[in-house]
Amino acid sequence: MVKFTSLVALSLAFVTAATADNNSSKPKYKDPLVPVDERVKDLVSRMTIEEKAAQLLQGDIGNWMDPNTGAFNQSGLVDNMKTKAGSFYVGYPVPASWLAENIKRAQDYLVNETRLGIPALVQSEGIHGFLLINATIFNSPIAFASSWNPTLVQDMAKAIAREAAAIGVNQLFAPLGDLARELRYGRVEECFSEDPYLAGETAYSVVTGLQSENVSATVKHFLGFSAPEQGLNTGPVHGGERELRTTYDGIPAAADSFMLNDILRGEWEYQYYVISDAGATDRLCNTFKMCEASPIDSDAVTLAALPAGTDVEMGGGSYNYKQIPQLVKDGRLDMKTVDTAVSRFLRAKFEMGLFENPYPASVADQTWSSLIHTSDAVQLAHNLDRESIILLENNNNTLPLKKSGSIAVIGPMAHGFVNYGDYVVKGSMARGVSPLDGIKAAVGNSATVNYAIGCERWSNDKSGFPEAIDAAKKSDVAVVVVGTWSRDQNELWQGLNATTGEHVDVNSLNLVGAQADLVRAITGTGIPTIVVFSSGKPVSESWIADSAAALIQQFYQSEQGGNALADVLFGDYNPSGRLPVSFPHDVGSLPIYYDYLNSGRTSSPDAGYINPDGSIHFGHQYVIGTPLPWYPFGYGKSYSTFSYSAVSLNKANATVSDTVTVEVQVTNTSPVDGTEVVQLYVIDNIASVDIPNRKLKGFKKVFIKAGATVDVQIQLAVQDLGLWNEKMQYTVEPGAFTVQIARSATDIAGSATLYVS
Amino acid sequence: MVKFTSLVALSLAFVTAATADNNSSKPKYKDPLVPVDERVKDLVSRMTIEEKAAQLLQGDIGNWMDPNTGAFNQSGLVDNMKTKAGSFYVGYPVPASWLAENIKRAQDYLVNETRLGIPALVQSEGIHGFLLINATIFNSPIAFASSWNPTLVQDMAKAIAREAAAIGVNQLFAPLGDLARELRYGRVEECFSEDPYLAGETAYSVVTGLQSENVSATVKHFLGFSAPEQGLNTGPVHGGERELRTTYDGIPAAADSFMLNDILRGEWEYQYYVISDAGATDRLCNTFKMCEASPIDSDAVTLAALPAGTDVEMGGGSYNYKQIPQLVKDGRLDMKTVDTAVSRFLRAKFEMGLFENPYPASVADQTWSSLIHTSDAVQLAHNLDRESIILLENNNNTLPLKKSGSIAVIGPMAHGFVNYGDYVVKGSMARGVSPLDGIKAAVGNSATVNYAIGCERWSNDKSGFPEAIDAAKKSDVAVVVVGTWSRDQNELWQGLNATTGEHVDVNSLNLVGAQADLVRAITGTGIPTIVVFSSGKPVSESWIADSAAALIQQFYQSEQGGNALADVLFGDYNPSGRLPVSFPHDVGSLPIYYDYLNSGRTSSPDAGYINPDGSIHFGHQYVIGTPLPWYPFGYGKSYSTFSYSAVSLNKANATVSDTVTVEVQVTNTSPVDGTEVVQLYVIDNIASVDIPNRKLKGFKKVFIKAGATVDVQIQLAVQDLGLWNEKMQYTVEPGAFTVQIARSATDIAGSATLYVS
Repeated sequence: MVKFTSLVALSLAFVTAATADNNSSKPKYKDPLVPVDERVKDLVSRMTIEEKAAQLLQGDIGNWMDPNTGAFNQSGLVDNMKTKAGSFYVGYPVPASWLAENIKRAQDYLVNETRLGIPALVQSEGIHGFLLINATIFNSPIAFASSWNPTLVQDMAKAIAREAAAIGVNQLFAPLGDLARELRYGRVEECFSEDPYLAGETAYSVVTGLQSENVSATVKHFLGFSAPEQGLNTGPVHGGERELRTTYDGIPAAADSFMLNDILRGEWEYQYYVISDAGATDRLCNTFKMCEASPIDSDAVTLAALPAGTDVEMGGGSYNYKQIPQLVKDGRLDMKTVDTAVSRFLRAKFEMGLFENPYPASVADQTWSSLIHTSDAVQLAHNLDRESIILLENNNNTLPLKKSGSIAVIGPMAHGFVNYGDYVVKGSMARGVSPLDGIKAAVGNSATVNYAIGCERWSNDKSGFPEAIDAAKKSDVAVVVVGTWSRDQNELWQGLNATTGEHVDVNSLNLVGAQADLVRAITGTGIPTIVVFSSGKPVSESWIADSAAALIQQFYQSEQGGNALADVLFGDYNPSGRLPVSFPHDVGSLPIYYDYLNSGRTSSPDAGYINPDGSIHFGHQYVIGTPLPWYPFGYGKSYSTFSYSAVSLNKANATVSDTVTVEVQVTNTSPVDGTEVVQLYVIDNIASVDIPNRKLKGFKKVFIKAGATVDVQIQLAVQDLGLWNEKMQYTVEPGAFTVQIARSATDIAGSATLYVS
Repeated sequence: MVKFTSLVALSLAFVTAATADNNSSKPKYKDPLVPVDERVKDLVSRMTIEEKAAQLLQGDIGNWMDPNTGAFNQSGLVDNMKTKAGSFYVGYPVPASWLAENIKRAQDYLVNETRLGIPALVQSEGIHGFLLINATIFNSPIAFASSWNPTLVQDMAKAIAREAAAIGVNQLFAPLGDLARELRYGRVEECFSEDPYLAGETAYSVVTGLQSENVSATVKHFLGFSAPEQGLNTGPVHGGERELRTTYDGIPAAADSFMLNDILRGEWEYQYYVISDAGATDRLCNTFKMCEASPIDSDAVTLAALPAGTDVEMGGGSYNYKQIPQLVKDGRLDMKTVDTAVSRFLRAKFEMGLFENPYPASVADQTWSSLIHTSDAVQLAHNLDRESIILLENNNNTLPLKKSGSIAVIGPMAHGFVNYGDYVVKGSMARGVSPLDGIKAAVGNSATVNYAIGCERWSNDKSGFPEAIDAAKKSDVAVVVVGTWSRDQNELWQGLNATTGEHVDVNSLNLVGAQADLVRAITGTGIPTIVVFSSGKPVSESWIADSAAALIQQFYQSEQGGNALADVLFGDYNPSGRLPVSFPHDVGSLPIYYDYLNSGRTSSPDAGYINPDGSIHFGHQYVIGTPLPWYPFGYGKSYSTFSYSAVSLNKANATVSDTVTVEVQVTNTSPVDGTEVVQLYVIDNIASVDIPNRKLKGFKKVFIKAGATVDVQIQLAVQDLGLWNEKMQYTVEPGAFTVQIARSATDIAGSATLYVS
């Protein structure tokens, strides 16, 4: 399996008549009224092999913009565009004005001063906010996926795209479709979920949101990238074709011809281009050892990757695709292969309308600054963040808190920096609303807030404990914020300390340093303690469930995260987040995903544990421990309570072409308004192969007034109930399916049987 | 993947003219001079469908022998043989005489009182000793594989077979070819190695050893059984066809028609039968959910398993194959399918000579008892065990100890029971030589032995520590024996406490209970402490390497284990065992096998750790920890030291049909005689697919006198250097291979380059 390609998915709705300028003196490819197929063909027919090759190599704005001074370098621009003119990367932590000006210069140069006038794709990062100083920072992917609110996620993607487009960026390397199934992996925070359906719905919202604002989305990483051996970034992923097809949501590929040509282009009819990840082409030699590595055999790399369907080479390596012209001249590479790649790439540009508008008006007239970090975007970050917070425990209804008396706020993630996930711009952790900030703002003068850090996140030093214990003892309640932390991309690649993030993998999911002992010290005071996990992945300290008065999971926050947390703590927002990943009791019980195969997760005779007196109750699976999750996928509490009616189907017998309506009435049986996430799982009762024990196939997030009942309908397409059979054909097997309405993967409210003929 | 079949491999050398009785009045199939093919055909042609079906269902001696009294029940025998006449199981913890008598009765009945006179396969367990009260107990499979001595292993298999054959058993369910690649899995102790080559060589020695004594071997478990998800027994195994073919030593199958018919019978030309594991056929319904489970749909099971190539159904389930006659009569099952299965099974019986000798003379004349637990067998158990012990650390040459002064022997595995692995007969743990027994016997009256248990193995109770500390303090040296423990099969299935064994899986590889603190307490006395891991799998307490004076790994012992350990402790035997599995630092870094793919086991920027002062050095892979092993595969120390000459090849250029001789001179540079295991690894420098970074391809265990040099030659067949290419064809790719001579998978003594054209 090779994991170095990402995949661009584009909507088809960019070209409008309004932007057309049908001058008959123009070449055909410049006429927006001509069908895209013909424009592509016409343009390719006019290109030299050097011009073609230049489309297939990614350039970099650093070649004509000094990242330290912003100074423009004309000869650097010209030189870059000779061989790397198709796209360029702009993800630098520099003032927005530097980027906007130098993007404009580059596009003006390409359009006006090159022979064919082909504008570039302008690329940057934006998985939870555009990677730009002062752009709006949203919560991390695993966090906003916890909202189970595709509409809000789409709104976020639109907001991100507007900020990117404002300075002329027209492509973002987002979203990640990778599944969070290996929790040791550092990039769990960048994923949406362990589940392909939830991840797919969330990714769809991001793609459509970005592209509705004329920014091209990039679905990465193609394929099976996120479950590496030992949890190590870029490690090999194990699994057969059926497993990949079943779990990875229909994405079956590796970066070979079978996957990229036969499946992606053949089966799926994908018309656009595939771009390698940074440095990934070199890895064919220096990691996979398929070619000589010192120096990198660029001919071999190009001949392995381009005909296999990797159309464009990203920077970060040896620019192997520079060899394309010579390889064609030597007869070692077919011009048709090059034309195919170039055509796929140009098709994207035509359909985006780039030839008509290489950059938006805000770049031309320098009005972009008013479009970035708007109050609307900041409010959206706040709303999305509070919908993403998951209430795990609320013993004795400790929450919500009153805005009176005194509140201790403790812990290294409570204040002093802002606990963002990775893929934020350099310096981000210095700005934003911390939990302490949010709590203080919420209570104003009506309550006293006693803050103590307790310990630094990176240290075993407990010298701060007495101060923290004092703060708790003089308060009515304590909020302790602990967890994991990441870094901005620059700090991460410098190797600074972190416990999650790209290439920051762990062999334990426990709290690092003195944090666990800090929680023990504060709960030990007897003051009711609310523990908040501020983290990028599950923390496996399950003893906290009992010793804390309440437990909250806030995955890496947005810049409004402290306000979002305060909303939940004080009941200004009734929590509605649900876990997009299962929580294990221990790293030793991984993998923990809910949709294990029918033959998985046996426990016989039972699970062992250590009694409070230290004596051991021995089990067999495990000897001391359990293979079951601490918290299951889909789990989350509310300040409200809900009851469910029986489940009904509008048809009990269906065929493959049918869509069945699953219906249930949900009642808010509590005195407070609340929001429930109604989840639909399906079990294929009998199947010809070993399949997942159940699969999420739908969900609906519904707001229900106190005492009210709402009717919830979820559409279930029978076509989606298939499996990959022994002949590796996707098929819906006739027979009975159990349709479950559930509060989580293991808390089933009711079910009905669907017979498929 | 389905894992319920085991696989019988039979040698072809059983039929001899001496046993022939060519009476022309006999039917053709009874004539040993007739070729087996014709005998099979003749016999099958005479059989009714009921007689055929009866061959394909396993019976049980419990049907005619009361396991509590030994009483014979004639009607039970007749009834059993009506439907389950092909084979029967005898693995009961009862006196050998009961078994011998009732095996004879059954064979006599089948041969003399049934229409066709077909004798049965008589089956039991014997993976490290025949499962019989008072039979010789050898050390566990992972232990004897640590000897890297195929000749001794073959001798052991012969000894086991002789004891089994003595009472009329003619088939053992051994060896396990499963690979120990998932260390949480309870049955690691039953496997030979993480490595397919070492496991293959060891399995080959067992098969040939058993079968040379006329006992049929059974290679189990077919296939990919031992790396289950979460480490849970019978869980699903993930991996694609290339991974299975590459790692699982050419065994690519699942229990479907493709694997059992196309690959096993087609590609491999395997002519014998496949038998399901106990209860495994039922699992098609009740676990895999491929059919109705309550009650088990026996028709569906039979129609799924038999045509797919599972010829014989083992007991332990619903006896689904009873449906065969009715299914044939109803036209739902082809008689040809039944005939094929019966023919495969009968072929084995003919080639074993069963029709001529259904049981050996020792059963007929009741002389079997003199053949069991002979002094030769016990001596062999002793020799094999001491060759299996691995010296991991020997700080300041603490070992070997002198047989003088005073020695403390401490720890729950030192005495009080005998620490055997699973698959021993009920009550075994009460007999044998414990470490304390062995040490006492070795020193006799020349040294004082101070024993204290310290703690019970299943307890956190430390009240025994003071006594243990006292024992250490009044001694010159302390030997602390800790580790894991298993149970006999009866106790295991009762669910009694254990930390390894069949269906006893763990989520941590640390010592259980108070054992780690016991080691700390004894090393804390300042008395030089030798720690012995007596265990069935790696223990991940790597801090012990520094705090102990010496560290020894003794995988589950034989009945002579205490004597074997004493031999090593006192230098009566110079240790020569080598690890057949890699040791991880922590369960969180699994899998840890040495032959990871080229793309695996990256570590960037570096690995983190906690300093002695409690401060944390942060790494990225892992944040705190390392993905590298504590001890690598192939590792083990000696009291001698060895130096290696340069490596030479008899040809530097070779073709696929060549065998290359790899040659090296090894010198014992120490003043004591010793034994070295010279290991040969091969790296395919450049390959068309992602392959293991290196593979063991040969080894030789050599005894070298002090100061002497020996010439070591290892044959390397170029044909064995292949890979499964992108078209899933096995191929040796031309190019350079690095041939390494090594002390372990990571300690390379020298190398040479082989060019394959």
